[in-house]
Amino acid sequence: MIVTSKIQAGGARAKARCDELGTVPYSDQADGLFRPYLGPAHRATLGRLAQWMDEAGMSVETDAVGNIIGHYAGTTPDAPVLLLGSHVDSVRDGGRYDGMLGVMLGIEAVAHFSRSGQRFPFALEVIGFGDEEGSRFSTYMMGSRSAAGLAQTIDEGVTDREGITLRQALADWGLSSTRFRTAKRENVLAYIEAHIEQAPHLERASLPVSLVRGIASQYRYRVTIKGQAAHAGTAMHERRDALAAAAEAITAIESIGAAGPDDLVTTVGFLTVENGAPNVVPGHVVMTVDIRAVTPGLREEAARQVLETLEAISRRRGVTLECEQVQDLQGALCNEALNATLREAIIEATGHVPPVLLSQAGHDAMIMAHLAPMTMLFIRCEGGISHNPAEAVESDDVEAAHRTLVSFIKRVGEER
Amino acid sequence: MIVTSKIQAGGARAKARCDELGTVPYSDQADGLFRPYLGPAHRATLGRLAQWMDEAGMSVETDAVGNIIGHYAGTTPDAPVLLLGSHVDSVRDGGRYDGMLGVMLGIEAVAHFSRSGQRFPFALEVIGFGDEEGSRFSTYMMGSRSAAGLAQTIDEGVTDREGITLRQALADWGLSSTRFRTAKRENVLAYIEAHIEQAPHLERASLPVSLVRGIASQYRYRVTIKGQAAHAGTAMHERRDALAAAAEAITAIESIGAAGPDDLVTTVGFLTVENGAPNVVPGHVVMTVDIRAVTPGLREEAARQVLETLEAISRRRGVTLECEQVQDLQGALCNEALNATLREAIIEATGHVPPVLLSQAGHDAMIMAHLAPMTMLFIRCEGGISHNPAEAVESDDVEAAHRTLVSFIKRVGEER
Repeated sequence: MIVTSKIQAGGARAKARCDELGTVPYSDQADGLFRPYLGPAHRATLGRLAQWMDEAGMSVETDAVGNIIGHYAGTTPDAPVLLLGSHVDSVRDGGRYDGMLGVMLGIEAVAHFSRSGQRFPFALEVIGFGDEEGSRFSTYMMGSRSAAGLAQTIDEGVTDREGITLRQALADWGLSSTRFRTAKRENVLAYIEAHIEQAPHLERASLPVSLVRGIASQYRYRVTIKGQAAHAGTAMHERRDALAAAAEAITAIESIGAAGPDDLVTTVGFLTVENGAPNVVPGHVVMTVDIRAVTPGLREEAARQVLETLEAISRRRGVTLECEQVQDLQGALCNEALNATLREAIIEATGHVPPVLLSQAGHDAMIMAHLAPMTMLFIRCEGGISHNPAEAVESDDVEAAHRTLVSFIKRVGEER
Repeated sequence: MIVTSKIQAGGARAKARCDELGTVPYSDQADGLFRPYLGPAHRATLGRLAQWMDEAGMSVETDAVGNIIGHYAGTTPDAPVLLLGSHVDSVRDGGRYDGMLGVMLGIEAVAHFSRSGQRFPFALEVIGFGDEEGSRFSTYMMGSRSAAGLAQTIDEGVTDREGITLRQALADWGLSSTRFRTAKRENVLAYIEAHIEQAPHLERASLPVSLVRGIASQYRYRVTIKGQAAHAGTAMHERRDALAAAAEAITAIESIGAAGPDDLVTTVGFLTVENGAPNVVPGHVVMTVDIRAVTPGLREEAARQVLETLEAISRRRGVTLECEQVQDLQGALCNEALNATLREAIIEATGHVPPVLLSQAGHDAMIMAHLAPMTMLFIRCEGGISHNPAEAVESDDVEAAHRTLVSFIKRVGEER
């Protein structure tokens, strides 16, 4: 175990603590990290976090869905709250910094002000969301959706791989699904989330941190194409080839993405030929279509074009084509005023004018945007790799992020 | 069991005997038909065939690779041989008529002449090839390749699913792989194979039997495309998407097939996205390409175009593209003189001028073409379905095929 008390406060300690939480008992996977929502590792992690939050001068509570909140009071009892946070769960065989680093940086920022007893006209709260990844149940962003007041009831059908219901998992923690709505945070001034970039742009620009313009909205579709399976000797004009139809669709979907602005991306990432064989004309193909864009309206227009194209292919080729929407994730733009303040904080902390990046990955911040103005701080990560044991950050970059957050909080205080 | 002696000779009996051989002990599969090369069902089947060949007036032998041959002597001891045959093995969960019907029709034709003692200036031989389908070992057409003198040595590495070598399987039958070359048939005048069509053209034309122009040559390739797996948020211009490259290739391959004459067909029947996921740009795709054509040279020209296209896609998209040839099956044209005789026989037997169909599926006849002039007689099958328990033929159609073969043999006799 890393003896954290010997590590200086700030970025290096934030990183070291993420490393400490990267193994048993903070992981439910013996080799590597897996910290699913409401599992034993999650519980052990909350115990350790509570200790660190307490040391940083915060009062600590766990809410009705298992989010942990550390509270550092403002100058008045009814002061609004500046929320700093991210998620504490991880995917299977995940990385140590995705999510957790944002929580640690929140704790370090509070610890910084707590040491001198500095208070602001707002409280500081650090929140560690229990579920962002859908790490145990098929629902995702359960933590932030509850905190934002969007998830007020439980889906009774939701179970984990072992068939344990979400209701039961909550009950095992002494939590009741009837208290969901109490998890909503009140009187929130703003939300800021520091997170590894999960893309290589900061690395390419040789910069430690950046602003974020916004988080992409996502549509995901499951497309089923049914033609007619046939012997590979069937004449070309007699075929209704499901894979040839899919191929035409994939090319069109790629073109639609490429024709749009840079923040529009379209992906066919999964495709399977049912009963595929070298000597059989494919009769049945299933594939996914993922459409993302940050600019409002762009995703919707691209989706319209994709659906129109699929319809035309279906008609022309005499194949049936079912397109089921399986995901509709509303993105969010970062608040411009918060970004202006964050920009100054980054310049102060790093000496560099930061680029404004896009987040194509989803974050709790897109949910919290429903509750309050939000912004994000991206931190360079090695190779843009995440959701992988190879996930890596530099201590210096985390230190830069720490200084940025401290400066940001001060500036928000000065603006009020 | 069907008591075959009560069924009249000819088409109806040929069909009934196929049905009898469709179950245990003539199948190694309790439910449905599976008759692999050199298995117990194959052995039981040869016993029954020997009995029927004997009853039809033939002397019977099994050759060095397990082919069964019934011999009906000609007018002189050194008369050449007119071979009638097909294969007796079946795919797993196969149909009752694919292959076996041709053997039965050979026996019925000999039985017809044997009843009146009619002899020809050539011997009649009925051959039942032990392996056409690659039903047990990865080698296929082992029976006809040996009979044609093309397979003279054994591939030592060949094993079945249980790891039993071909050498061992032969030894279990008392056969030695060193005697392979003795299986070559000598002094063959011609080879004729009656076979179900395995396509729906006769059904559509409402005709029982047809001529065949030739058997397609086949190339098969395994194509591996490697790009760069990436998060689905990666900007379009930064991607090296293996599936998008595959899609472009599939569309081009389809176009090359469609632009050629009707006997050219191109198929991508199998495709898999390695580690495919909705939110990942595919980095690795494997697919097959199957190219078939009857007209000599057509397959080669299409393959050249396909490879050129793959090369261009690889270069333009920055993906690596490996194309491994996994099959090169040389087709064959049916002999024109034999087809002219067969045409007259069909007109006599059915009253219809037969169409000249293509065989996009492979047959023993394409191998036997190396030994002697060959031709094929296609028989209508329901829905064009084969390699399936649903395989079905009409007794009347088999009867028409029987009358055709009898007429054909007589005409060949008259021509000599």
